[in-house]
Amino acid sequence: MATITGPLSGDAKDTVVDALQGALVDLIDLSLVAKQAHWNLVGAHFRPIHLQLDELTDLARAHMDTIAERAVAIGANPDGRVATVSKSTKLPQPEGGWLEDGKVVARITDTLDGISKRMYERIRATDDADPVTQDLLIAVAQEIDKQHWMFQAQR
Amino acid sequence: MATITGPLSGDAKDTVVDALQGALVDLIDLSLVAKQAHWNLVGAHFRPIHLQLDELTDLARAHMDTIAERAVAIGANPDGRVATVSKSTKLPQPEGGWLEDGKVVARITDTLDGISKRMYERIRATDDADPVTQDLLIAVAQEIDKQHWMFQAQR
Amino acid sequence: MATITGPLSGDAKDTVVDALQGALVDLIDLSLVAKQAHWNLVGAHFRPIHLQLDELTDLARAHMDTIAERAVAIGANPDGRVATVSKSTKLPQPEGGWLEDGKVVARITDTLDGISKRMYERIRATDDADPVTQDLLIAVAQEIDKQHWMFQAQR
Amino acid sequence: MATITGPLSGDAKDTVVDALQGALVDLIDLSLVAKQAHWNLVGAHFRPIHLQLDELTDLARAHMDTIAERAVAIGANPDGRVATVSKSTKLPQPEGGWLEDGKVVARITDTLDGISKRMYERIRATDDADPVTQDLLIAVAQEIDKQHWMFQAQR
Amino acid sequence: MATITGPLSGDAKDTVVDALQGALVDLIDLSLVAKQAHWNLVGAHFRPIHLQLDELTDLARAHMDTIAERAVAIGANPDGRVATVSKSTKLPQPEGGWLEDGKVVARITDTLDGISKRMYERIRATDDADPVTQDLLIAVAQEIDKQHWMFQAQR
Amino acid sequence: MATITGPLSGDAKDTVVDALQGALVDLIDLSLVAKQAHWNLVGAHFRPIHLQLDELTDLARAHMDTIAERAVAIGANPDGRVATVSKSTKLPQPEGGWLEDGKVVARITDTLDGISKRMYERIRATDDADPVTQDLLIAVAQEIDKQHWMFQAQR
Amino acid sequence: MATITGPLSGDAKDTVVDALQGALVDLIDLSLVAKQAHWNLVGAHFRPIHLQLDELTDLARAHMDTIAERAVAIGANPDGRVATVSKSTKLPQPEGGWLEDGKVVARITDTLDGISKRMYERIRATDDADPVTQDLLIAVAQEIDKQHWMFQAQR
Amino acid sequence: MATITGPLSGDAKDTVVDALQGALVDLIDLSLVAKQAHWNLVGAHFRPIHLQLDELTDLARAHMDTIAERAVAIGANPDGRVATVSKSTKLPQPEGGWLEDGKVVARITDTLDGISKRMYERIRATDDADPVTQDLLIAVAQEIDKQHWMFQAQR
Amino acid sequence: MATITGPLSGDAKDTVVDALQGALVDLIDLSLVAKQAHWNLVGAHFRPIHLQLDELTDLARAHMDTIAERAVAIGANPDGRVATVSKSTKLPQPEGGWLEDGKVVARITDTLDGISKRMYERIRATDDADPVTQDLLIAVAQEIDKQHWMFQAQR
Amino acid sequence: MATITGPLSGDAKDTVVDALQGALVDLIDLSLVAKQAHWNLVGAHFRPIHLQLDELTDLARAHMDTIAERAVAIGANPDGRVATVSKSTKLPQPEGGWLEDGKVVARITDTLDGISKRMYERIRATDDADPVTQDLLIAVAQEIDKQHWMFQAQR
Amino acid sequence: MATITGPLSGDAKDTVVDALQGALVDLIDLSLVAKQAHWNLVGAHFRPIHLQLDELTDLARAHMDTIAERAVAIGANPDGRVATVSKSTKLPQPEGGWLEDGKVVARITDTLDGISKRMYERIRATDDADPVTQDLLIAVAQEIDKQHWMFQAQR
Amino acid sequence: MATITGPLSGDAKDTVVDALQGALVDLIDLSLVAKQAHWNLVGAHFRPIHLQLDELTDLARAHMDTIAERAVAIGANPDGRVATVSKSTKLPQPEGGWLEDGKVVARITDTLDGISKRMYERIRATDDADPVTQDLLIAVAQEIDKQHWMFQAQR
Repeated sequence: MATITGPLSGDAKDTVVDALQGALVDLIDLSLVAKQAHWNLVGAHFRPIHLQLDELTDLARAHMDTIAERAVAIGANPDGRVATVSKSTKLPQPEGGWLEDGKVVARITDTLDGISKRMYERIRATDDADPVTQDLLIAVAQEIDKQHWMFQAQR
Repeated sequence: MATITGPLSGDAKDTVVDALQGALVDLIDLSLVAKQAHWNLVGAHFRPIHLQLDELTDLARAHMDTIAERAVAIGANPDGRVATVSKSTKLPQPEGGWLEDGKVVARITDTLDGISKRMYERIRATDDADPVTQDLLIAVAQEIDKQHWMFQAQR
Repeated sequence: MATITGPLSGDAKDTVVDALQGALVDLIDLSLVAKQAHWNLVGAHFRPIHLQLDELTDLARAHMDTIAERAVAIGANPDGRVATVSKSTKLPQPEGGWLEDGKVVARITDTLDGISKRMYERIRATDDADPVTQDLLIAVAQEIDKQHWMFQAQR
Repeated sequence: MATITGPLSGDAKDTVVDALQGALVDLIDLSLVAKQAHWNLVGAHFRPIHLQLDELTDLARAHMDTIAERAVAIGANPDGRVATVSKSTKLPQPEGGWLEDGKVVARITDTLDGISKRMYERIRATDDADPVTQDLLIAVAQEIDKQHWMFQAQR
Repeated sequence: MATITGPLSGDAKDTVVDALQGALVDLIDLSLVAKQAHWNLVGAHFRPIHLQLDELTDLARAHMDTIAERAVAIGANPDGRVATVSKSTKLPQPEGGWLEDGKVVARITDTLDGISKRMYERIRATDDADPVTQDLLIAVAQEIDKQHWMFQAQR
Repeated sequence: MATITGPLSGDAKDTVVDALQGALVDLIDLSLVAKQAHWNLVGAHFRPIHLQLDELTDLARAHMDTIAERAVAIGANPDGRVATVSKSTKLPQPEGGWLEDGKVVARITDTLDGISKRMYERIRATDDADPVTQDLLIAVAQEIDKQHWMFQAQR
Repeated sequence: MATITGPLSGDAKDTVVDALQGALVDLIDLSLVAKQAHWNLVGAHFRPIHLQLDELTDLARAHMDTIAERAVAIGANPDGRVATVSKSTKLPQPEGGWLEDGKVVARITDTLDGISKRMYERIRATDDADPVTQDLLIAVAQEIDKQHWMFQAQR
Repeated sequence: MATITGPLSGDAKDTVVDALQGALVDLIDLSLVAKQAHWNLVGAHFRPIHLQLDELTDLARAHMDTIAERAVAIGANPDGRVATVSKSTKLPQPEGGWLEDGKVVARITDTLDGISKRMYERIRATDDADPVTQDLLIAVAQEIDKQHWMFQAQR
Repeated sequence: MATITGPLSGDAKDTVVDALQGALVDLIDLSLVAKQAHWNLVGAHFRPIHLQLDELTDLARAHMDTIAERAVAIGANPDGRVATVSKSTKLPQPEGGWLEDGKVVARITDTLDGISKRMYERIRATDDADPVTQDLLIAVAQEIDKQHWMFQAQR
Repeated sequence: MATITGPLSGDAKDTVVDALQGALVDLIDLSLVAKQAHWNLVGAHFRPIHLQLDELTDLARAHMDTIAERAVAIGANPDGRVATVSKSTKLPQPEGGWLEDGKVVARITDTLDGISKRMYERIRATDDADPVTQDLLIAVAQEIDKQHWMFQAQR
Repeated sequence: MATITGPLSGDAKDTVVDALQGALVDLIDLSLVAKQAHWNLVGAHFRPIHLQLDELTDLARAHMDTIAERAVAIGANPDGRVATVSKSTKLPQPEGGWLEDGKVVARITDTLDGISKRMYERIRATDDADPVTQDLLIAVAQEIDKQHWMFQAQR
Repeated sequence: MATITGPLSGDAKDTVVDALQGALVDLIDLSLVAKQAHWNLVGAHFRPIHLQLDELTDLARAHMDTIAERAVAIGANPDGRVATVSKSTKLPQPEGGWLEDGKVVARITDTLDGISKRMYERIRATDDADPVTQDLLIAVAQEIDKQHWMFQAQR
């Protein structure tokens, strides 16, 4: 069976694979968490937050693809299966039932803060190992930070 | 805190909520399973299957939204959190690592066959309870059956 | 003078005509009621509700056309004249003057709740008489229920 | 409760409000009258007139919005409720039932002639009071006159 | 050689296959009949009818695809070969040579009336057997009825 | 009844009419043959061939219109009725039932080879008679030859 | 001052320049004649003919540009000045005042018949001299013949 | 034969008709003059001026339509025939043959200056007679002045 | 060096230049003030106001161009340099640092009120001097008044 | 009142804030300087430079937004008020009055050269402090350098 | 291994293959020569010529594809490898380093003149052998001649 | 004659120019190699590979422009002439004649592997010298690696 080889090997490859797999889990779960809040939201600010959460899902979906495809391109297997994401996600999970708008804003702000911190660690970790991967992570961090500001601004 | 009321109540509502939550889990996991195969695929038929799997993800994402929003519209809370999906999914899970094209076609065919069967049960179950929900499930089944044929045709 | 004949006759046709004329009046007045609120709205939530009311008008205008054209297609005359709508509408009418955002949300929620109930009655009534008309009414009910949820969610 | 203030006051404002409310009623009822004919039309010239009546509805809907929003912008409440339109409309009302193409053309020609005359009165009335409102009314009159010519040309 | 299996079997499948094959022949021949008239039309109403006949061809082509693909999805072979259509079509055939506009309108009206009647029979026949197929047939019937009205209106 | 006169007469017109009617039958049946294969195809190369066959149908539909309209423009009646096409088609007909991908490629290659040969004869035949018709046939031949190469390349 | 040289010279160039200048005058005046009728048209068939005349103007404007630019490309000066067109046009001129729909159809049919005849002469004249110019004239003739048929069909 | 009546009569109508007919001749000849220069232009600044002249033609064509249609809408016959334009145009005519870029810029600047002056006279003349026509002429003058500046700036 | 001449001179030109330069400064600074608030905004209504402020910037940027280009077209030099705008702006300036949503709405409402008043003065001032400039100012005033209403409505 | 926190603190934050505020002032004033030249330009090369200056404004407007939003995302307040820009801009200011094309090209070349130099300093300064900000500055520098080349190339 | 057969054989095929291979080399090198000048251009006319050279590249790229694909369609192998193009190109090669605008215009004019001459030879050579290939070459020649004029016009 | 100066000088500039010229040759020849295979491809996987090779050409064409324009922006002359590319290319050259699909996939995989390795060297080489150039090379490498994976996956 064909396997894929890419431009990295050894420790550099291991470091990059860890960063990419971590980012992938963050982004897949972000897409699910944002949809969960998009659906179960209530409160006087329903409409603007409902729409903003969909932008967040779109962002997460677009970037999970570039991150996973970078993993394949360097010869590693991205793992986006539901059990993997469920076990390894670091995102605080939304409660079941209706979600009040103010609490959603606070919770998503915290969630994005955590993702941002992990992305910066990955950016540092991949600095020597692979500038191409680092560049993709920088692009993710920039949009996560922007969303973090916009949710935080309405707390 | 505001909660949502809708056009259904009692047993009818319970039946419909079950059907919608089941369909939601099927569709969310289908979007993840199709992406996993989209990324880890190898084999001489790589490109057409790679593209077709993305159509499957798009289909799953579009319908998970109409299904979950129907649940909210009848006053129930759709649950699309990763732990919920992980625990309750009935989809056969892809193995880790590289996935050969022939096996992917066979596995996705089986996966779609299972989803189709469950959708038909839900269509029957909601016949009396809610024609609006039934109509949404019929639309899902039609597209799942079509994808099932097209994967099956290339086995 | 030419008149139109269609696939229905007798009681089935009468039942379907009643359902379609009732739905037409609901949708025409919904388009006017939503515009009245769109224009006279005030309050801190002005902008999201102002935009959402225009979506409601668009929805009402799109469906009034399919409903009226179904009536003609079965050989009946839809009546959308202003005097007819004014006399037969069942929608609670907005007061004159400025309309506060919170009250608009509550009032539109009730208005959509009433339309939804009448649409379900029409769906049941046309079940035997004409599955084509029923299908159009189901499509209307699905979107009315969705708007009902979204207005209700921000009360 | 917030109310809106605008650039006009006193007699000037009264004059402009009257002109705008009159134009609003003309345009809302024109949209309903044109749709009524669009649906109930019969005759050998069905298709071109059917399409042209929809252009008329589009024109009426687009301008009713700019007219009503000008009213709000100067601090007045546009009244587009069905009872108001029904009571105050000056448009000749279509009969119920099928409408023959030749008669529709004649009737719409007369209807547009009446609207044009009232728009010119409003243009004169607002000349001193508000050049911004006058400019919006001139734009309406130009399109009404153009439609008047095109219906008249096929009598 | 691969064959396709689908969600139906036994009598239900036979019933649905008959309905789909009948609808397919109706739609393929409708696309040819409408083109024949589109090309050979003469008369003072040439242009609007010429354009409307092309809409009819577009409608027939779009629906023949969903109908034939539903047949494959349930594991049957749609037969759209020219000999099959020629032998089994129930559409009245246009004469050779120039076709006068009034006669075309009358003939197409009758043709659509026949297709509509057969579609309603198929809707009834598939009610128990397959709600997914039925839903596709309802969509066809709705558009056929609408075209039937619009041709009939100009007789 | 109006009939159409055009720029040709006598033998030149007869020659051109024959060429156009022959091309019309080729193209109409090509559109049906390609659809039949598009629907009943099976095999590991399903997806790329399924898509390519739809391009073939689009090509055939676009050119049948220019060919038939050229016939009318020179005052002749194109005959695209199903019985005419069935009787006069020179295309090898697909068997009923499932069609294996390799056989479809071979069969379509042969079919396009035959159409190409007949188009070249028509191009020669119309050289003196009508350069306008010849130009349309050259455009058809160019696209048929291109499709012929692309099917042949994957045998 | 720069002048333009091109691929032709001597008699060949003279022949081609004559053909192009003649075609240019035909097309410029066709655009004016069609607009004159578009504006001054009256009669029960007003709308379809009004729209069709605009298609004719668009066609004339598009082709006058390719024709004039071919003249420049072979080093000649196209002359599209109003005095030149006025003096050299061979198109029958519309009368002043209102133009009845039936007469417009008859007159435009004759006008297009004349242009077609002259285009065929130019196609023959340029056969040896310049196949590139001939190809542009063939494209003009094809569209003129098509419009000629469509106006003629509604006489 | 139908004739068109509009909102004006007597002296007011005569004044407005004169203004519209004058503007129409200006705009039709501007479209021809700009094309003549577009085609026969030579010089180092060829490309930007060649493109700008096409913008001028587009502008002239768009406004000639609104101006002529306003004439019809008030019940008058716009006269855009080539002989009328040739006799009554006030535009300086381009010489035959190649046109140097610098001279074209100077000549078009003068041409636009003349049109602008006549448009301002027409704006003054229609001030009392018809504010709708005046508004259309103001829109023409604004764009003519803008083009005048842009040609003048590059002298 | 080339300078530009236009249709105005003397006092009329001076009056119009003053009006245009004043409007230009208003619009440039409005674009900067709206962006400043767009960026530094905080509060529970962040998202709808953030988006609305960008519409305001778009509006200001579009109109500053038509206003400045009118100035050039009449032969004057618009001055949009930062020092000029800074010295001559009449807009209340936002404070540095974070800007609360409620205060932003109040401040922008006042800012638009001031701009509207100055635009009406300019409309009056240019009435005799230049109807073309007046027409551009009327278009600005209409949109400023509309934005003024929509910000005021949410106070 | 809410304030925004972001991923940076201490010296790193101060360094990044300085770089972003400096870039913001450069870009805002570039947008104003380019518009000033766009409007007041004269000379034989008017049109291509006039258009290129608008591209420069578009570039400056697009990047000022990403730069200012990055500042907010790290918890700082971008200051784009006119007084701030006027005081702190380092761009050479255009003179009042008409601007000759050659001088504009020279002046804009110098202006872009200065901005480029400052952007490279900011890229170096943020290298350790924040790779995300650095990436945004790199994107600005790349487009500024490209514009610098294209203006310089035509000196 | 599959090889491709097409409609030609013997001398006719050899003639056509030579013409196509010659045209292919011309067009590939034209795309490279135009890009080389697009990048290294300097001079006061930089921008319009820079843009026009990109149009030339686009034209060359579009036609090289139709030419090469015609070669394959007749069963021959187009050779577009860099060594082949380098050895067999007949285009005068640009010098290295900066290229002045006036010299670029002159050189490209000569280059296009040469290509045009060779295309006319190919058009003559393929006249008997293959009208389909000839038609593609005519389309190339028409666009090359047009570009030749437009470069020549600005010398 | 104007020459271009940019932000770099000395060794840094030399290093960057080498990297850019090397990347330019890689990308130009990649566009030619991919087209050669696109045209001469045969085999059962023809269609997906034929399409994928065109994506590769598009990618190469888009990036060759940004790379060459960066060279000019730093004041160097990119050399994309066919002789230069032919002499300095490091890409393995395709054989003449038909190219089997499996061999094409293997050969393109190796070709992309080589380009990727050289791009990583250039990314390292430009790290200190010019972060802007490095960023463009990183973007190239990311897409080359992605294409490398996708060709490799189907070996």
